[in-house]
Amino acid sequence: MKIGIIGLGLIGGSLGLDWMEQGHQVWGVSRQEQTCQIAEERGAVYQANPDLESLAGAGLDLVVLCTPISAILATMERLVGILPSETILTDVASVKAAIVPKAEAMWPYFIGGHPMAGTAEQGIQAAQSHLFRDRPYVLTPTHQTQAEALNELKPLVMDLEASCLEMDPESHDAVVAWISHLPVMISASLIAACWGQSDPNHLQMSKRLASTGFQDTSRVGGGNPELGVAMAQYNQQALLTALGDYQDQLDQIREMIEQENWLALRQLLEKTQEHRPYFIK
Amino acid sequence: MKIGIIGLGLIGGSLGLDWMEQGHQVWGVSRQEQTCQIAEERGAVYQANPDLESLAGAGLDLVVLCTPISAILATMERLVGILPSETILTDVASVKAAIVPKAEAMWPYFIGGHPMAGTAEQGIQAAQSHLFRDRPYVLTPTHQTQAEALNELKPLVMDLEASCLEMDPESHDAVVAWISHLPVMISASLIAACWGQSDPNHLQMSKRLASTGFQDTSRVGGGNPELGVAMAQYNQQALLTALGDYQDQLDQIREMIEQENWLALRQLLEKTQEHRPYFIK
Repeated sequence: MKIGIIGLGLIGGSLGLDWMEQGHQVWGVSRQEQTCQIAEERGAVYQANPDLESLAGAGLDLVVLCTPISAILATMERLVGILPSETILTDVASVKAAIVPKAEAMWPYFIGGHPMAGTAEQGIQAAQSHLFRDRPYVLTPTHQTQAEALNELKPLVMDLEASCLEMDPESHDAVVAWISHLPVMISASLIAACWGQSDPNHLQMSKRLASTGFQDTSRVGGGNPELGVAMAQYNQQALLTALGDYQDQLDQIREMIEQENWLALRQLLEKTQEHRPYFIK
Repeated sequence: MKIGIIGLGLIGGSLGLDWMEQGHQVWGVSRQEQTCQIAEERGAVYQANPDLESLAGAGLDLVVLCTPISAILATMERLVGILPSETILTDVASVKAAIVPKAEAMWPYFIGGHPMAGTAEQGIQAAQSHLFRDRPYVLTPTHQTQAEALNELKPLVMDLEASCLEMDPESHDAVVAWISHLPVMISASLIAACWGQSDPNHLQMSKRLASTGFQDTSRVGGGNPELGVAMAQYNQQALLTALGDYQDQLDQIREMIEQENWLALRQLLEKTQEHRPYFIK
């Protein structure tokens, strides 16, 4: 198939690498001329160009929007005059309810998507083959979705060897609020609170003594600030719900410690030890 | 030197491996006969025995208590009748203020210690050489500490290639509350809250979609429950102080999200991204 990818960062570039390897013809768009060059050299695209108009007349079956969340709808508006209306469009944003209804209203063959893979690195240089292998790839079709569009998109997800799941946009957002967006906020809060401790000698020693426990718990809180804000901005309600429940749970733990209810704390920690493996592959 | 190690788990066994390699003669004690055998086979001890009395008459210069926290003081009481009073004693507990004053009152040559290293595994089988290399090893001498005891203990810490630090017991506990004990509670709270979400379909999908972010943030909350309770029990006040400050910080983040103060959230996340590397080696 002929596939367009708009935004050649980690996700867009990695999609391109896999699809090119599978014999698809990938047309890339990136605002940076240099990114286009690197994408071509690395074989992530058949050809890449900074102009969105370069996709006109290419006869693309599918176009994947891999821009930052805030640019998706604006980019789609521009595509209206460029692509034939029967082109299938999908995105890769980590939030769906803020995107899908508006995108569907603009484009009948739009299907929301969220490939759940990543690395600590960003950009085309970090793109890698098989990034999505055995990782969840969520599609969020709605009652408006055209069955033939979904039937064309799914085999492309299978080509990535990803595990394809279907959810409605709201359920998707509720779930990622819990397992992806909430961890960012509680982890950032750990760094901020620890940094803000009042005794300068204790802060100094905290930096020296911090070990793997702090390192792991703080990792996602020290990530890309733009992405963290986007999670909160575009998934506000689901994140606030998860955050409220989390705060209630933490209050309970604090009460157990205050009241020296060691039996209750022990039972809780036995449960968390028992339950964690269900979330870990 | 002749060194006794009581408790041949990960820490005791790893201390033994390094010290034996350095030419010291290590006498081990473990309640489990099998653990004693494995310690001997692995070269973590010169000889090991289930009876504490086996240390009598061995002419030990130093004895290291590597039992669970709750057993340290009781074990020391038994040692009074077994070891000559000039033997130097130290422990490896992750809390110090609950141990050191009582231990000093019982034993004039006691110095609190906390080697800050570990692995996910436990027990003598997990013991490894160089576990403490380039890791902090905190000693907590007080105004009661005999200088000659400290001068004998320090070179043994250097033999481990650890980075030897001195702190008072209260400062040590305040710092580990922040960088080690608090992360356990906020991480456990994530698992418990996520598991407790009300929609069973969302819980089901959370398990399928949880990825590296959830995995890292939840790691220490899914650890040994006994150790988690001991942290709270023996470091109660310092942990409650850190937990309170953490909850205030998280409240601020929730307010930013509620009030859509994206600029403030962005500035906070930029700071946490900037500050985290100071805690990470």
